[in-house]
Amino acid sequence: MGDPDPLQGVAELDLDRTARRGYPEAVFCAGKTPEQVGRIAAAVRGRPDVTTLFTRAGAEHAAAVLAALPDAAHDPASGLLAWPPTPPEPTGGLVVVLAAGTSDLPVAREAHLTARYLGRASDLVVDVGVAGLHRVLARVDLLRRARVVVVAAGMDGALPSVVAGLTSAPVVGVPTSVGYGAAFGGIAALLTMLNACAPGVSVVNIDNGYGAGHLAAQIAAPQGDS
Amino acid sequence: MGDPDPLQGVAELDLDRTARRGYPEAVFCAGKTPEQVGRIAAAVRGRPDVTTLFTRAGAEHAAAVLAALPDAAHDPASGLLAWPPTPPEPTGGLVVVLAAGTSDLPVAREAHLTARYLGRASDLVVDVGVAGLHRVLARVDLLRRARVVVVAAGMDGALPSVVAGLTSAPVVGVPTSVGYGAAFGGIAALLTMLNACAPGVSVVNIDNGYGAGHLAAQIAAPQGDS
Amino acid sequence: MGDPDPLQGVAELDLDRTARRGYPEAVFCAGKTPEQVGRIAAAVRGRPDVTTLFTRAGAEHAAAVLAALPDAAHDPASGLLAWPPTPPEPTGGLVVVLAAGTSDLPVAREAHLTARYLGRASDLVVDVGVAGLHRVLARVDLLRRARVVVVAAGMDGALPSVVAGLTSAPVVGVPTSVGYGAAFGGIAALLTMLNACAPGVSVVNIDNGYGAGHLAAQIAAPQGDS
Amino acid sequence: MGDPDPLQGVAELDLDRTARRGYPEAVFCAGKTPEQVGRIAAAVRGRPDVTTLFTRAGAEHAAAVLAALPDAAHDPASGLLAWPPTPPEPTGGLVVVLAAGTSDLPVAREAHLTARYLGRASDLVVDVGVAGLHRVLARVDLLRRARVVVVAAGMDGALPSVVAGLTSAPVVGVPTSVGYGAAFGGIAALLTMLNACAPGVSVVNIDNGYGAGHLAAQIAAPQGDS
Amino acid sequence: MGDPDPLQGVAELDLDRTARRGYPEAVFCAGKTPEQVGRIAAAVRGRPDVTTLFTRAGAEHAAAVLAALPDAAHDPASGLLAWPPTPPEPTGGLVVVLAAGTSDLPVAREAHLTARYLGRASDLVVDVGVAGLHRVLARVDLLRRARVVVVAAGMDGALPSVVAGLTSAPVVGVPTSVGYGAAFGGIAALLTMLNACAPGVSVVNIDNGYGAGHLAAQIAAPQGDS
Amino acid sequence: MGDPDPLQGVAELDLDRTARRGYPEAVFCAGKTPEQVGRIAAAVRGRPDVTTLFTRAGAEHAAAVLAALPDAAHDPASGLLAWPPTPPEPTGGLVVVLAAGTSDLPVAREAHLTARYLGRASDLVVDVGVAGLHRVLARVDLLRRARVVVVAAGMDGALPSVVAGLTSAPVVGVPTSVGYGAAFGGIAALLTMLNACAPGVSVVNIDNGYGAGHLAAQIAAPQGDS
Amino acid sequence: MGDPDPLQGVAELDLDRTARRGYPEAVFCAGKTPEQVGRIAAAVRGRPDVTTLFTRAGAEHAAAVLAALPDAAHDPASGLLAWPPTPPEPTGGLVVVLAAGTSDLPVAREAHLTARYLGRASDLVVDVGVAGLHRVLARVDLLRRARVVVVAAGMDGALPSVVAGLTSAPVVGVPTSVGYGAAFGGIAALLTMLNACAPGVSVVNIDNGYGAGHLAAQIAAPQGDS
Amino acid sequence: MGDPDPLQGVAELDLDRTARRGYPEAVFCAGKTPEQVGRIAAAVRGRPDVTTLFTRAGAEHAAAVLAALPDAAHDPASGLLAWPPTPPEPTGGLVVVLAAGTSDLPVAREAHLTARYLGRASDLVVDVGVAGLHRVLARVDLLRRARVVVVAAGMDGALPSVVAGLTSAPVVGVPTSVGYGAAFGGIAALLTMLNACAPGVSVVNIDNGYGAGHLAAQIAAPQGDS
Repeated sequence: MGDPDPLQGVAELDLDRTARRGYPEAVFCAGKTPEQVGRIAAAVRGRPDVTTLFTRAGAEHAAAVLAALPDAAHDPASGLLAWPPTPPEPTGGLVVVLAAGTSDLPVAREAHLTARYLGRASDLVVDVGVAGLHRVLARVDLLRRARVVVVAAGMDGALPSVVAGLTSAPVVGVPTSVGYGAAFGGIAALLTMLNACAPGVSVVNIDNGYGAGHLAAQIAAPQGDS
Repeated sequence: MGDPDPLQGVAELDLDRTARRGYPEAVFCAGKTPEQVGRIAAAVRGRPDVTTLFTRAGAEHAAAVLAALPDAAHDPASGLLAWPPTPPEPTGGLVVVLAAGTSDLPVAREAHLTARYLGRASDLVVDVGVAGLHRVLARVDLLRRARVVVVAAGMDGALPSVVAGLTSAPVVGVPTSVGYGAAFGGIAALLTMLNACAPGVSVVNIDNGYGAGHLAAQIAAPQGDS
Repeated sequence: MGDPDPLQGVAELDLDRTARRGYPEAVFCAGKTPEQVGRIAAAVRGRPDVTTLFTRAGAEHAAAVLAALPDAAHDPASGLLAWPPTPPEPTGGLVVVLAAGTSDLPVAREAHLTARYLGRASDLVVDVGVAGLHRVLARVDLLRRARVVVVAAGMDGALPSVVAGLTSAPVVGVPTSVGYGAAFGGIAALLTMLNACAPGVSVVNIDNGYGAGHLAAQIAAPQGDS
Repeated sequence: MGDPDPLQGVAELDLDRTARRGYPEAVFCAGKTPEQVGRIAAAVRGRPDVTTLFTRAGAEHAAAVLAALPDAAHDPASGLLAWPPTPPEPTGGLVVVLAAGTSDLPVAREAHLTARYLGRASDLVVDVGVAGLHRVLARVDLLRRARVVVVAAGMDGALPSVVAGLTSAPVVGVPTSVGYGAAFGGIAALLTMLNACAPGVSVVNIDNGYGAGHLAAQIAAPQGDS
Repeated sequence: MGDPDPLQGVAELDLDRTARRGYPEAVFCAGKTPEQVGRIAAAVRGRPDVTTLFTRAGAEHAAAVLAALPDAAHDPASGLLAWPPTPPEPTGGLVVVLAAGTSDLPVAREAHLTARYLGRASDLVVDVGVAGLHRVLARVDLLRRARVVVVAAGMDGALPSVVAGLTSAPVVGVPTSVGYGAAFGGIAALLTMLNACAPGVSVVNIDNGYGAGHLAAQIAAPQGDS
Repeated sequence: MGDPDPLQGVAELDLDRTARRGYPEAVFCAGKTPEQVGRIAAAVRGRPDVTTLFTRAGAEHAAAVLAALPDAAHDPASGLLAWPPTPPEPTGGLVVVLAAGTSDLPVAREAHLTARYLGRASDLVVDVGVAGLHRVLARVDLLRRARVVVVAAGMDGALPSVVAGLTSAPVVGVPTSVGYGAAFGGIAALLTMLNACAPGVSVVNIDNGYGAGHLAAQIAAPQGDS
Repeated sequence: MGDPDPLQGVAELDLDRTARRGYPEAVFCAGKTPEQVGRIAAAVRGRPDVTTLFTRAGAEHAAAVLAALPDAAHDPASGLLAWPPTPPEPTGGLVVVLAAGTSDLPVAREAHLTARYLGRASDLVVDVGVAGLHRVLARVDLLRRARVVVVAAGMDGALPSVVAGLTSAPVVGVPTSVGYGAAFGGIAALLTMLNACAPGVSVVNIDNGYGAGHLAAQIAAPQGDS
Repeated sequence: MGDPDPLQGVAELDLDRTARRGYPEAVFCAGKTPEQVGRIAAAVRGRPDVTTLFTRAGAEHAAAVLAALPDAAHDPASGLLAWPPTPPEPTGGLVVVLAAGTSDLPVAREAHLTARYLGRASDLVVDVGVAGLHRVLARVDLLRRARVVVVAAGMDGALPSVVAGLTSAPVVGVPTSVGYGAAFGGIAALLTMLNACAPGVSVVNIDNGYGAGHLAAQIAAPQGDS
């Protein structure tokens, strides 16, 4: 359009800063074209000293990443890729991730894997909704060993309230868009969590497993590491 | 305004129909002037065979009712008045009303008293929020004796989900406007209850203790009475 | 991703508890992969003593269930499957299900069939919207025989108010996402029902025919059965 | 503030245009100071050939109007004043105004009186909610004589749907802010009316009795008068 | 599912009542299957004395109607079909339909054709948005001849306010879902119209051209015809 | 509370930066106590070289400011105070501020006075709503002399669309909270303006006259002054 | 449908007026059929003296335009076409367009190109989100040369607040629909920008790059050109 | 009302559990009557081994607490009381609390004091909004010493995004209800924070300073203490 390419690049990476801070760089794929994601993956190839995560990668995004970084780890359920593929040795406290139901698994896996790639030990437990309290109560010992608990729940989003009453560790709620009708794509669960009647619950964006895992890794970081 | 009184009356009572159906007539005071409420109370005086409830009565409404019906029962906390003042002998199944917190008491009392005046036995239990599960679990025996459970809860509104997992009786959730910020005057609790992950929960309007108690009385009505 | 399968299973079934409570286990398919649903169906096969419902099953979910349980009953309109396929002999009171319009039929059928599989007799009536009152009035006798009435309605959602004025049985409203524009996917009908000017109406989530049928079966359960 | 009065007046009246169009000028008081309303009332005094309505007048606004126009008609319930005080002889068709409940009366009166001052015959009927269908059905003859029906209703707002099914006259719904909780100050009733399942219903703003009465007067205007 | 067809039919038509009221029966296709629509069309075939409209008909719905009623009139842009195909001779006053922009045409056509099939003369004018006032002003003569004006507008929905200031005929606003971002699928236009600063505007549901045309036909009905 | 005053001050003023940028410092009073506002006013006293505005000042805030700065200019209608009291000599282009109705005057005055104190010439015109187009059209000459037009409007908020069609100057819309019901405290007007069908309209927050006046002053700044 | 083509045309172009005002005509394609867009493109062909922009053109719209105007400029990323293809020589001040992230590029490009075709010089800068302040701070010199800054940002939409604190030029915020969950398709960013704590920010509709670019061109117009 | 006191108490305190968990019991006063709060304060008097906080206490609530516990600490700005009055010796990491503006101070103080009474060292800094970046940048050293940062911000709520980009400590955002118009009582800030473009931000309910302080104390707890 008479406009001699106004964009040299599609993004500005700052991998040196990433290296200094010690946390991976993350590339949010959902709003980018596969071609843009591929160009970023290629730019990352020269820096195996820094872990890079690709989040919300659809099938085409994943193919573009794997073309540039064939040995990247890939979890299709959560849309996460990581390169280099091996997570670091765990340090700091334990992260426990709960998925209220099977449908919350993709988000819970995203949190779990993010915490792993940021250097924490993480346990993932599925199908512990509040309609069957015995399932929650059977995990009290695990919850009490956790330095932080991530709870992914859709529908009524009531699990974080119950969990926060059972442990003195901070709880990070991740509302998921699971449900229908007046679940409003996760708004119901989001509001429930924001209004948790037990103190010690904070909330991240709907379906934001990456954010929950990142925050959990920061909370469980080894003392003196923040 | 040159408009020779277009309103003979302020309302149309149909006490014969009420007598036939067996449930009290209810006068919703909140949108009426005390003077209008007083005129209705006076109209009711001639029909002691029919129980009449006055709901959402502020101090001035209550005074107007009591001026016309001095022996009416009055519960200021819930804004309920009843005349004649003595509830009928209980028939049918047991209604159990739970208030998640002290602040939910006015709504819970409205449900409890309504069920009583519609002819059911009713138990009211306070301060059983999900943040302290031992409080709920200590009531499991009572819950299992109930023909229907009414749960009044604000903030996260998570209690009905938990209760429905513990009993096979139907659960009527009443979201209350207790809370602040993103509680949005009861919307958060309303959405939580509509999305309850346990089946067997239905919901009435925010703060609608009267509606919940009425419905509970219908559900617990003696067989052959519906 | 260097993550030695952290999930042994995709869900935790508790069929013994289901057997004790007397109500079927229900598997919500919408958020699960067909492969996950198939694994659950296979796990269920060994327990013909417990009825299992699969709700919100799309064509692929249904195929996965039928592969594992070839004789399962399947109602494509409502996305419901049941196994074993024969509903129990009816006990308790009568459930009446009304669909305001033809478009509300899938939700109404889900409620109707759920009540059947939970052991109640159920009648389903179609096309009784309030714009033609004679259609409602023609069903007053049926309504008065019901122990509980389920009303599925979209658009203005006005039918439960009218029905509750005609019967003393409790009414369970199911707003449907039928309509357009300011129907907002069922929100308009949901709000109408929550604000029903007749007492005796409670509401379940938008399009939640399963929840309405389950609740109706609980309300109409034989005395001493709750 | 060093700002030599930038406002000669507080409003621009165009009473000649009003005279030409044949409909009254209306002054919306709610957002104005009593002093501003008083200045407008004084400006109107010289034009007894034009009817002026003052709407949404609180006690102080009314006092300011009556100071300038002592013989103005004043209906405190609806906050309406009119000057000159006598409505014109009715022409055109009949306007029928229904109030679903006593609490809807202020809005219904505003519609009724506006129609009167715009030159129509108008009947006002109270307490005809859908929970008691016999009350509506008892007015079918009146409804069928109407050229237009205005229906003021809060809570579930279901009355216009029912009325539109009983008459072929156009129905103007006025949602009122009567109700509580999920009535959301009239939004529930507004949505119900917008989604009326019977054709022939249109809607004006919440509590806008003036607008409904004005519109009804236009619809019922004598042929050749529009 | 062991459920011997509980539905004899998919709908209940009442064509005699339609014949008595003088307005067509309308079948809302959007929520029905093509097969259901086809069965209704076949049922209609025996009654050429009554006009039947099929609204919101997609391509498959239209094919099903045309299979049963091959000579039905069909307007693909608005998804409307009519049978018998010839509209009645116009009676009553003139309906004028304005479309603010080209994108509002489908809705405007639905209103225009509905008014025609209900027996009114109707004029349709396109592309008269308020950003170019000269286009509106050029139609003042036409507007003043109208008995009622229908205005279809999306985006800011400002046109009805302007039109109502130019005519004393009632204005029916139809917000359309045209626009993006904060147009919120027609909510912005809906709110604008509900808050029109000129009296004489009422509103129907978003994109509800059928409702607007039906209402317009009722308003413009010959005197003594309502 | 055993907490040796953790706050030396209530705010951090940076009047040197203000002096460098050339625009006044503004103190938003609404969320502050009168005592806090008074302390800020006292701190400002030593800097007559910088204009300071106090916005959203209630009566008590204003008293606190005037106690410290007795010669401050004060406009009670808009809640604005300015010190030193004399606005600078106007430079740059002309700002024109329109108020759609009398009720929009407080917001319009806030914009007008802000523009004056930021150094622009400003004209304020009242009562130019779209329901009376002749009022707008009578100001076309003024609009075309403006470098920027600020339009304050509540209710339907339609005026900016019309104005933008009449001038090629940029238009800044300020929705006001004037209106009722579905005006939703200015949301309706906000949405209308965001969806203006004429290009050249941007929007500031509801009732934010200060922001609109500030922006207008920046837009109309003398060339080379930005 | 017995309706002899009531539409001679699909739109009313007024290219003479466009020529007089000096700004291009814009055709919003999203709500139109490709065939309608093609007819408009053909109508434009005879007027090379006026620039015409086609906005929100999908692939089929673009093909229809290019069939009629083969040498039109086309930017597929933003869906913009322009004819004649060469933008005018820049006059007036500099427009700077910032995209907070790569995903905001389509909207930012639409603003940038629109400003170019309306006759301004424009610079486009990508990936300057507030999470890495050094990226913003590195552009302070450019920001201070701008006559107006357009900021396209999704997710938290915080960039305009930061930018407005760094420059005295007016800032036009364009919220984008980038993000997920509680980003609500751009509503979160829209609200953030409306509440910008720095004065000097105004907002256009979500994803409305065309509107932002148009407004920026008006603001940066040469003195005496408005 | 013939109802022999169904409530022995207004609440159920479990101070032994509080003693075991090591965190104070908190009494939310806002929904309770002063008399109820006073009864709880009296019940607490016998347990000086447990710290009790009274949150959201208005003047009457505070008087009731101080009548029972005269030496309780009281911070009227935030509505917090504590008894016994002396906070414990700090252990664990440093909590830093930022208030974006003076108006956010009450909420920030509630967070700060809560963290102190839960046993952490806490620093409170005021007036660091993003419109003046130099204020934030001047605190980078402090931010980097923090184990957790609490950010209280209203209006655009943009500060947490900026802070999270400057530190690797977790950030707890507390949206405040400061602002007007489209701030919607804190919703705008809430959404901004949920969509923070920097990872490491989580959010608590609007104005929930107590929850933020509690969570911060949990995050900064000494290793092995969770």
